[in-house]
Amino acid sequence: MTETELKEYITGIRPADAAAAELAAARQAKLAKPPGSLGKLEDISIKFAGITGRILNEIINCRVLVFAADNGVTREGVAVTPTSVTLAQCINMTRHKTGMSALAEYFGNSIRIYDVGIEKEFTYPGIENRKVRQGTDSIMRGPAMTRAEAIAAISHGIATADEAAHDGMDAVGVGEMGIGNTSTSAAVLAALTGRPASDTVGRGSGLTDEAFENKIKVVQKALEVNVPSACDPIDVISKVGGLDIAAMTGAFLGLAANRILAVADGFISVTAALCAVRLCPAVRDFIFLSHASAERGYKIAADEIKLEPFMLLDMRLGEGSGCPIAFEVIKAACAVMNGMATFEEASIDDAYLDDIRSRV
Amino acid sequence: MTETELKEYITGIRPADAAAAELAAARQAKLAKPPGSLGKLEDISIKFAGITGRILNEIINCRVLVFAADNGVTREGVAVTPTSVTLAQCINMTRHKTGMSALAEYFGNSIRIYDVGIEKEFTYPGIENRKVRQGTDSIMRGPAMTRAEAIAAISHGIATADEAAHDGMDAVGVGEMGIGNTSTSAAVLAALTGRPASDTVGRGSGLTDEAFENKIKVVQKALEVNVPSACDPIDVISKVGGLDIAAMTGAFLGLAANRILAVADGFISVTAALCAVRLCPAVRDFIFLSHASAERGYKIAADEIKLEPFMLLDMRLGEGSGCPIAFEVIKAACAVMNGMATFEEASIDDAYLDDIRSRV
Repeated sequence: MTETELKEYITGIRPADAAAAELAAARQAKLAKPPGSLGKLEDISIKFAGITGRILNEIINCRVLVFAADNGVTREGVAVTPTSVTLAQCINMTRHKTGMSALAEYFGNSIRIYDVGIEKEFTYPGIENRKVRQGTDSIMRGPAMTRAEAIAAISHGIATADEAAHDGMDAVGVGEMGIGNTSTSAAVLAALTGRPASDTVGRGSGLTDEAFENKIKVVQKALEVNVPSACDPIDVISKVGGLDIAAMTGAFLGLAANRILAVADGFISVTAALCAVRLCPAVRDFIFLSHASAERGYKIAADEIKLEPFMLLDMRLGEGSGCPIAFEVIKAACAVMNGMATFEEASIDDAYLDDIRSRV
Repeated sequence: MTETELKEYITGIRPADAAAAELAAARQAKLAKPPGSLGKLEDISIKFAGITGRILNEIINCRVLVFAADNGVTREGVAVTPTSVTLAQCINMTRHKTGMSALAEYFGNSIRIYDVGIEKEFTYPGIENRKVRQGTDSIMRGPAMTRAEAIAAISHGIATADEAAHDGMDAVGVGEMGIGNTSTSAAVLAALTGRPASDTVGRGSGLTDEAFENKIKVVQKALEVNVPSACDPIDVISKVGGLDIAAMTGAFLGLAANRILAVADGFISVTAALCAVRLCPAVRDFIFLSHASAERGYKIAADEIKLEPFMLLDMRLGEGSGCPIAFEVIKAACAVMNGMATFEEASIDDAYLDDIRSRV
């Protein structure tokens, strides 16, 4: 996809079906319960109707997409985990042995693992090669990648959404594997919101105080060196982001274009969701947030796209590990909408109750 | 069960198996992830090990118990919903048409509905008759019931836990149906914690400002008229509680005695859980909180038993409607514990990665 083609693609994304959402809200109001008493389960069912254009919905096929890439910023000592873990954990995912993949297997979700920029060249069954380049450059010393490379990664992300649509997915989660990507996400979030790195940088996989201070400095330096343009998300991604974030941004765009429910899970995912929403505000209509991540910048990104997570699990593992649980909550929202009686159906008149009584 | 027998029963409840919980925590520390990065999923799996005495656990059979009763306090204008709805909604539950029962059906949970004090005499298939009396008296004018009646309802609750154990349940949620029971719960919570009614009374199913002020006055009056003894939960339940709360308290006691994972869901349920924990502190080891209810007193009761809910769904429907979703989260915690690789198993050495690379 060229930049012009990408822009046309984005222009083609239509917002949710407001009329269907309104009809769903009207049905929720008729269900036999105090108004609003099912809280976010009601909101989810209404938003879902807007996505599909149908009042009643069901989730049968779920998938978690994992975008894997190495990030050159790891050379600045921002991560405790060695970069070889990016590939190693992708291999473990194919075996269903990581947090997300163990959950996906348990709940019957499919997973797809895309290498969009792991440093090593390799082939491995179950890891699809969509490599744009072998890792990125350190954002502290210059741009992570070229603008064309960012667009290539975004295009790969869009293609994975098309595949999900082709495979009949009802809900798709967007996850990642990329050592160093809490640093790049913090830089992207800072660039898009104008906040300092000290607001957006968190402790990732568990840094010491000293390493944490260094991580803030690295991200701040990256912003100073690259001067990304806040109103141009592709500029931000290419300069201070990563191939993982770029592809995830594409996935959110593609899911919206295909009108598929998308779950943003974790700090990197919600940052990519923000990039997608900045590129195309209508994308917001298609995104649900799973759990409130314990990673620091999460709340800033979530507030920025004005969405609220529905779980409080203190998780900060990444991978899209909250997606399989989020799918269960969304299924619950559908089950209530589809299964509950309306006030009319639920009304049991006194004569009937008297009749029951008389049979004692 | 006489009061002496109940006291003996309570004395027999042993705390969780600390050694098993410790071994589970040690296994969590070995799983290939940053320490603590799966947050409450880790905590749940560790606590669950303490309940069963096994490091690895699984949830197959789940049940939601519903205790239904009418509350005389409705005669003081504290509820917008007519009392006939208690029975009508129980009937709708047998048809899987209410919020909780629609969810339970979707997720394959069994439900049991126990009439422990509905006003009308009746028989209906699927609603089990454990009626202690036909509704309670108004707590604003005197005790809700006698001490013996409270103990009878608690005993019924214990018996339902024994049934759940006999039926091989791995996890049991404790729900209710009883118009007026947010008022009695607020009174019980105020009595147990020494807080004023203005702290513990919420808007229930949706009261006007005026009706809300009246509800606070009614609960405050109930406390003044009855002077329940904070250190005697049975006294509190019998004077300002209800038959639903009494039976739910018994269910929590019985589930702990049977060493079954219990889910407290919603304001009335968490208040009953607090009663059970006050009667026997070890019961706390067996209780999980589902979602943070939007009903006002919920947080006070949750803080008092020092447990934290894991969902943020703004629900306030009651019935135990959060239980089916909570079971899915607990299943997720088991799936992670059972499915993830340890660091040793996950370690993929450089030679292997080099080998993959060389095959390109």
